[in-house]
Amino acid sequence: MRSITEYCVVLVEPKYSGNIGAVARCMKNFDVSSLYLVNPCEIDDEARARAMHAQEILDNAKIFDTFEEVRKELDYCVATSSIVGGTEKRYLRYAVTLREFVNQIEDFDGRVGIAFGREDYGLYNEEIATCDAFITIPTSDRYRSLNLSHAVAIVLYDLFLARDKSPEKRVKRMGRMETEKMNDSLAEILELINYPSHKLERTKILLRRLIGRAKLSIWEYHTVMGIISCLLYTSPSPRD
Amino acid sequence: MRSITEYCVVLVEPKYSGNIGAVARCMKNFDVSSLYLVNPCEIDDEARARAMHAQEILDNAKIFDTFEEVRKELDYCVATSSIVGGTEKRYLRYAVTLREFVNQIEDFDGRVGIAFGREDYGLYNEEIATCDAFITIPTSDRYRSLNLSHAVAIVLYDLFLARDKSPEKRVKRMGRMETEKMNDSLAEILELINYPSHKLERTKILLRRLIGRAKLSIWEYHTVMGIISCLLYTSPSPRD
Repeated sequence: MRSITEYCVVLVEPKYSGNIGAVARCMKNFDVSSLYLVNPCEIDDEARARAMHAQEILDNAKIFDTFEEVRKELDYCVATSSIVGGTEKRYLRYAVTLREFVNQIEDFDGRVGIAFGREDYGLYNEEIATCDAFITIPTSDRYRSLNLSHAVAIVLYDLFLARDKSPEKRVKRMGRMETEKMNDSLAEILELINYPSHKLERTKILLRRLIGRAKLSIWEYHTVMGIISCLLYTSPSPRD
Repeated sequence: MRSITEYCVVLVEPKYSGNIGAVARCMKNFDVSSLYLVNPCEIDDEARARAMHAQEILDNAKIFDTFEEVRKELDYCVATSSIVGGTEKRYLRYAVTLREFVNQIEDFDGRVGIAFGREDYGLYNEEIATCDAFITIPTSDRYRSLNLSHAVAIVLYDLFLARDKSPEKRVKRMGRMETEKMNDSLAEILELINYPSHKLERTKILLRRLIGRAKLSIWEYHTVMGIISCLLYTSPSPRD
């Protein structure tokens, strides 16, 4: 039974084994031990050499065929990218900065994955769309693309400092099942009100992100779902 | 004549050329262009490959024989180390954290070097002794030693955010008026569904807190209010 947040690093289709090793090393530097790999290159001598004293992280890495599979293992998933520049209207690539994200972080009862994309193409849009948060590391406009293991090191560093705060009262947060149920119910509401189909996907992503940011406790979840159920399954008396 | 702070990265006796290349890359990521190398290994193909789009930083790197020489080129020098644990009385290894350091940084009229030691031995005491500041990156007690280029990336990232005082594209968040309007509309929904009166006040507060945490932008506000208006002012066809 988990009772506190467990962070995992998710590398999606990493191509260079040296990067995997370097990522393992910096995970150990920042007390994160779960490494999930989606369709990775071989973990060879180069990976082993770069991992230094973090061999056990490579030994215990879990390998998945698709991002969809790894997503099922996570209660909350954060996508990272250097390609942001979305606008509020093109919501998918609309990111918050890493610092904004860690400043808001609270204990979360479950497994939180931080997903890093391919060295060349990053994460695909359909992968990002399933994530609960989307973050970016601010960099020079002249050269935005960080080395993969540098990106991981920076994220884990910022997270380490934020987690290092004295433990306040821990609240039990809703997990993946509750999150999905809430997102599904909100989608049903959009259906109920005949929400314009050309805006539908974008708005679903927007709602998913809002829920991701609000980080509901279990109790808040039940209260909100109570309201949503009333809207969905009773006969309200609409005005006019 | 310099009128603003110019940051330089100083690598003291780096042994692995790949690290030099990786350092050059992340310098470009964070808008630092001056690389000073003290008695380095050869800058070979591995360094070139890892530097990616930062070849000019390698081309322009200045090479010195000793730390003493490089020290003369700097107006201010910051030593970094993972081996700290000094006390105020044994002052040499008494470090401030990177975050404390960058939080105190102010514009400095001159050239500021950040010195990183050898991959195996770090900086020697006599090198640290000549520096104006001594900082450390907090890491796990179980594995303190960061890869050299990871240490540089983390320092430059934190410094970049501290230097980047100019507000980025700031997102316009919803203000007090929008917040009240949203809370009022949610209260109307509770009314619409005949929400149990003994739970009403508590639930209104809960919703207010959720909205407070989600920190909606103006655009998100309008999208959500669109959904709420549909619920309030159209005739949905509720199930059963």
